[in-house]
Amino acid sequence: MKALEQRIIEAGKVLGPTVLKVDSFLNHQIDPQLMYEMGKEFSYLFREEKITKILTIESSGIAPAVMAGLQMNVPVIFARKRKSLTLTDNLLTAHVYSFTKKETNEISVSGSFLNHDDSILIIDDFLANGEAALALAKIVEDAGASVAGIGIVIEKAFQNGGKKLREKGFKVESLARISSLENGQVEFLSNELEETIQ
Amino acid sequence: MKALEQRIIEAGKVLGPTVLKVDSFLNHQIDPQLMYEMGKEFSYLFREEKITKILTIESSGIAPAVMAGLQMNVPVIFARKRKSLTLTDNLLTAHVYSFTKKETNEISVSGSFLNHDDSILIIDDFLANGEAALALAKIVEDAGASVAGIGIVIEKAFQNGGKKLREKGFKVESLARISSLENGQVEFLSNELEETIQ
Repeated sequence: MKALEQRIIEAGKVLGPTVLKVDSFLNHQIDPQLMYEMGKEFSYLFREEKITKILTIESSGIAPAVMAGLQMNVPVIFARKRKSLTLTDNLLTAHVYSFTKKETNEISVSGSFLNHDDSILIIDDFLANGEAALALAKIVEDAGASVAGIGIVIEKAFQNGGKKLREKGFKVESLARISSLENGQVEFLSNELEETIQ
Repeated sequence: MKALEQRIIEAGKVLGPTVLKVDSFLNHQIDPQLMYEMGKEFSYLFREEKITKILTIESSGIAPAVMAGLQMNVPVIFARKRKSLTLTDNLLTAHVYSFTKKETNEISVSGSFLNHDDSILIIDDFLANGEAALALAKIVEDAGASVAGIGIVIEKAFQNGGKKLREKGFKVESLARISSLENGQVEFLSNELEETIQ
């Protein structure tokens, strides 16, 4: 998605060979218009699937997921990383190991909102090692529902998550696929827009 | 806002005299169309203010805030409850005491995204004792910016947060104002739609 690649080049900050900071438009400050365009793109990319619900994970997945839900006219559920006082019954859980933070978090979703006949689109902001997407897919499958696809805002294609998910047979669509962050430069897989950012 | 009050009556669950569970459309599962309508309403309610940015808090504030940002064409920032690895410089922090969880959390916002001339609309999902809104207002003021208003999805008007914020001179607009949750019933301040939910 050109507008997203352009924004990554203009506003992303490469903090290391695997770390891209995009907190000026996605992870901390959010650009609602860009999210809206991303929602349209997700809706287009998964137009062949009969999506009944979207599942994401707090917090940075929520904005793109809600915009996709708006376009596709389906509810959005966000998995919680922290326990909720009022979210206690019928919990589906999974563990997510974060390679960056070197810690394992339990995420949870109320089983009340996932049905056997649901066809779920998983949406997340980043795809690196695939841990979060796999945990969300496990929750969907534990509920007896099916994963219709996985939509990612930014895929770090030089890490193995995308390969892992595609090998498992999931339809994965990423709005931007980064092939390298070496030397402080962002390069995209598309090869159409390889430029340097600071 | 009628559509929101109606949804609270249909889908909210009163768990006690101060606890309303709305996780089927706001706090866990999200109804994007309703969020879009809420965004329009916030935009209308604050049409006289010159809002330059919206500040909310993860996670349940994000969806309504992003929809308001879409309508008002301004960026949205969400305060973090957990430390971020890539969010480290120029942090503005405040403490939020949760009466329900009986714990204090530190929230943080990168000062890079709040400027002296910003006029900030604070948006949050619930207003009870006003702790979160006051913490967000402190962060705005610490940044030298000004609070143009506070937009709340559901105000528990029988608790003292709304009074506290209005007495401090903030313009507070709530899309639904609940006057009581006694006896498992939701009553609204408007008096136009006082009905019973389970």
